[in-house]
This record gives sequence, structure tokens and C-alpha cells, in this order.
Amino acid sequence: MPQGKPSVVPEDGLTTRQRRNRPLVVVHTGEMKGKSTAAFGLALRAWNAGIPIGVFQFVKSAKWKVGEESAFKALGRVHEQTGEGAPVAWHKMGEGWSWTQRPGTEEDHAADAREGWAQIQRDLAAETHGLYVLDEFTYPMTWGWVDVDEVVSVLRDRPGTQHVVITGRGADPRLVEAADLVVEMTKVKHPMDAGQKGQRGIEW
Amino acid sequence: MPQGKPSVVPEDGLTTRQRRNRPLVVVHTGEMKGKSTAAFGLALRAWNAGIPIGVFQFVKSAKWKVGEESAFKALGRVHEQTGEGAPVAWHKMGEGWSWTQRPGTEEDHAADAREGWAQIQRDLAAETHGLYVLDEFTYPMTWGWVDVDEVVSVLRDRPGTQHVVITGRGADPRLVEAADLVVEMTKVKHPMDAGQKGQRGIEW
Repeated sequence: MPQGKPSVVPEDGLTTRQRRNRPLVVVHTGEMKGKSTAAFGLALRAWNAGIPIGVFQFVKSAKWKVGEESAFKALGRVHEQTGEGAPVAWHKMGEGWSWTQRPGTEEDHAADAREGWAQIQRDLAAETHGLYVLDEFTYPMTWGWVDVDEVVSVLRDRPGTQHVVITGRGADPRLVEAADLVVEMTKVKHPMDAGQKGQRGIEW
Repeated sequence: MPQGKPSVVPEDGLTTRQRRNRPLVVVHTGEMKGKSTAAFGLALRAWNAGIPIGVFQFVKSAKWKVGEESAFKALGRVHEQTGEGAPVAWHKMGEGWSWTQRPGTEEDHAADAREGWAQIQRDLAAETHGLYVLDEFTYPMTWGWVDVDEVVSVLRDRPGTQHVVITGRGADPRLVEAADLVVEMTKVKHPMDAGQKGQRGIEW
């Protein structure tokens, strides 16, 4: 592992400490499944560092991330009871709908997604959380339900020290440009190729 | 997201259910940091599914994953107190040593790594855990401290339903060949490039 030595020292007038504490926008994209998984792993570290966590799930199927939700809610209760870690807020946008499996018009889904984005904007303005996990948030941008330029602008102008992690395939180039850290998960080999479906507790 | 439809149905004499419950060997490799993070995210889901977790850290610096360790130990206590989730065992190989920063001979480190691998073999034989996270385990293999062929053979012949996730750069081709799922984390953009160091609770 690199010992954290920056390859370039920018002439931005900031001290190392100021740069170090700069809030980050992180994007996890690519074709493989690890995108959300890695985001929730990152949230684990944030929880331990006492950073309040807000999760916003923009799902497009009925497959909620129930494992992560249960574990983080348990960690939220640990915080309430012992003071260890940090609070956890877990939002599912348009709870109960599915973008692929239930009846409903595209307009409803677009409205649900916009409502979720409006909640995120309110929370950012109020500095409600320290780490925002916007799970599968690339999709409503891809489908034009949420405006990418607006997202980039809101993220750029957010107050205080609020970190934001966005997951999903096909991150818009404007979002990649605005991000501080972008990780692409690439498939090397997958059991689907050998005729195996995902397993509860391991792959979903 | 794909709805879990295998691209090939293999002629291996197994039912879909048998294939579905086949224990997996997963490898997270590549140059980027998300490798361990994604492994711990996966372990979150396993915890919720009631799968006992054993973590074995083969670190090569003093940078323990303290955030993940604290969070998972908290989840282990939740299990002890409420029965929710699953037990968590957390091992640091050769606790207290560092492969890069403290005095010591290479032989000591090799012996520590082999001792850790011996413990894993005992646990696999006894079916102690349901999910093994072998964090940064590629390095002792790369350096010849642990024999890759032996690892592949032990993993192939492990009894019962025990999932194994191995993280680290430069996974040996024999390990990749033996794995069911291999994810490579690729750097697209990183704040190090802009002169920023990692932040506690977010990047380490």
C-alpha cells in the first residue's frame, strides 16, 4: 500500500491539513457488483470515526440491500445505547415501488426519484449527515429524472464537511469530472459464467 | 442490474439449488483501495444472513483497519446480546509487527504469515466460520512465504459450506483460476493526484 504520499502538491493556497480534511465526492461505477458493497464498507469506517451516516437508496428493483440495512441499523442502535460510533439514517426512495417489476407509470418513478433528490438537497443544506451514501443514484441521472448539472452544482456548493458516495453503472462524465475519487469495478471472472445464481448473504 | 439469470447452464450434474449454495472463493484484486472495503461490505451481508465471520488480517504496515474492526466487533456484541446476525472472530496475524516499519528479520514475518495460514487451515478443517476474510493475503503468497499451490489445494478441498474472500494486489494466476469470483478495482481518478492525503474514517 502506498504510504499516502501525494504525487503532486497543488498550488491551491491550502495547507496540507485543509486539503486533508476537504470533504470528498466519491463515485463507484463499472459493470461489477462491488460498487454498493464497497460504499457500505466505507460507511463502516465512517461509523467508527463518529461520522453520521445517511443512506439513500435509489433502487430499480425489489432487491433491497437488506443485509446492509439490518447491519447498519444494528450499528445505529449500538450508537444510541452506548455512544460508540455514529447515528445512521436509512432512506428508501419511494419505498415500496419497483422500477422494473410493478405496475406504475414512468412519471411516478421520476417523481419518486426527484423527491429523494430533494430530500438529499435539504439534508445537505442543513448539514444533517457527515457521509451520504447515494446508492444507485446514477440511474435516475441516466434516465433524465434528475438533472446531472444540478447534482454537480449542489455537490460543489454543499456547506461544511459532508462526504458523498454515489454508486451505480454508467456514471455521467460530468459527475466523474466533479468527483474527487472514482473507482471502477471490473469483472475478471464471475460464477454467473458457470451457471450459478447469486447467494443470499454473499452476493446480495 | 441483471436479474440473476446465468448465461450458461453447466452440465455438472448439480441442481440449481446445489449450485446456488456452492461455497465461493472470491478474490478482490487490482491497484485501487476498494479491495478490503468491498470484502468487509460483503461480510456485512453475511453477518445479517447469520453466517459466522472470521477475519484474518495479513497486514504489511501499521495501518490496521481499525474502523472495520471496531464496527464488526460491535456487530459481534450485538449477536451475543440479541442473537441478531452472527458471531465475528477477528485475527491479526503476528499482532504488533509491521512488514515495513519495524525492525525484524524477513524470516520472522514469513513465520508469522505461515502461522496465520496454519490457523486458517485448522479453522477450515473444523468448519469454524462460514465466511473467511483473508485480508491482504496475496502478499505473503507473492513473497513466497505461503505456498500458492497449497492454498489452492486447501481451498479446493475445504469441507462444508465455507466462503472465502481474499484481498490484495497482484493475485497469483493460480489463485485467480481457482476462484469463483474475481473483482478488479481499477483507479479512474484519485485525490492523491490532486495532492490530498487519505482521511481518517473515509479512506482508511
